[in-house]
Amino acid sequence: MKILLIGATGTLGAALHRTLDTRGHEVLTVARGGGDLRFDITDPAQVSEVYDRAGRVDAVVSAAGHVPYGPVTELTPEDYLAAFHGKVLSQIDLVRQGIPRIAERGSFTLITGVLAREPIPTGSAASMANGALEAFVRAAAIEIAPQRVNAVSPTVFTESLGEYGDYFPGMPPVDLADVTQAYVRSVEGAQTGQIYAL
Amino acid sequence: MKILLIGATGTLGAALHRTLDTRGHEVLTVARGGGDLRFDITDPAQVSEVYDRAGRVDAVVSAAGHVPYGPVTELTPEDYLAAFHGKVLSQIDLVRQGIPRIAERGSFTLITGVLAREPIPTGSAASMANGALEAFVRAAAIEIAPQRVNAVSPTVFTESLGEYGDYFPGMPPVDLADVTQAYVRSVEGAQTGQIYAL
Repeated sequence: MKILLIGATGTLGAALHRTLDTRGHEVLTVARGGGDLRFDITDPAQVSEVYDRAGRVDAVVSAAGHVPYGPVTELTPEDYLAAFHGKVLSQIDLVRQGIPRIAERGSFTLITGVLAREPIPTGSAASMANGALEAFVRAAAIEIAPQRVNAVSPTVFTESLGEYGDYFPGMPPVDLADVTQAYVRSVEGAQTGQIYAL
Repeated sequence: MKILLIGATGTLGAALHRTLDTRGHEVLTVARGGGDLRFDITDPAQVSEVYDRAGRVDAVVSAAGHVPYGPVTELTPEDYLAAFHGKVLSQIDLVRQGIPRIAERGSFTLITGVLAREPIPTGSAASMANGALEAFVRAAAIEIAPQRVNAVSPTVFTESLGEYGDYFPGMPPVDLADVTQAYVRSVEGAQTGQIYAL
């Protein structure tokens, strides 16, 4: 398949690139600071430009999302708005603008995260963003068939435990290899409206 | 208890007002177009003003939220932003600004809705908003103790079936009386981080 990979330069994006390559897919990479196409998907005009340049693709997979962290007593309305723009609206826009442009039976696979269901201190904006996207995925799925949309919702990566492990005490990490397989399941399988919780 | 009721003039707000009155609470009502205090909580400055005028309260209960409906192919980024401001950020702001002002063991009870878990066509912005708030509630709860925060997440009201029933085919409605009891459970009980799904 021809696959558009958004957020290709992060830890997950790079792993995803390797996995999709290995499975024989043609991968077109998008990132703010690198990749085949350098664009920022938090800007709807740039999402449109990405689709114009990419041409017809069979799948859109996203590993891109940024949210601020901080105590609920310190996060401002601007912080929650930044989380909404940086992770929610940007990925919703990939779907919205992609519907008329990707293949008839194409798919979207978005990134959410464990904080939708398991909160941690300082994570209220992240939880909010992940919960928003997961509910959106269930809702969009029933409207866009035969196109499909799913979300991958991982906990902390085993490979990132050194940096982030202290935020997830006692929570089992997930190997990047298992996370990338959830994307494969979404892209090559036939399910829709699923949240792959890992 | 002294209770601040936001969205007091809607179908749910009016029922909630009666129930809380009957249970002997002192209810201070807030709404854009009526109530003891006429304010629009989608504006953070007005939320601050509401708390200044209300003085110390024991509980904040919200029945206020507005989101646009439309096919996922027609909803615009502005529509999702309107849903975010109209239902998510407004209620997050009630919590954020309320934490330093309400009673030490006070509570917040927010309104979400069944579309967080059961999607319907044209409901993707509503699903997104409800999912966002429910994840926020779980996250905020672990930070604000001994203050508490819960959400009431009802399906279509029995009393609103004439107007909205066609959007919820085969889904059992809930009586307003049961919805208002979920608020009582949140306000007078001791639970936190709960989503009362009705």
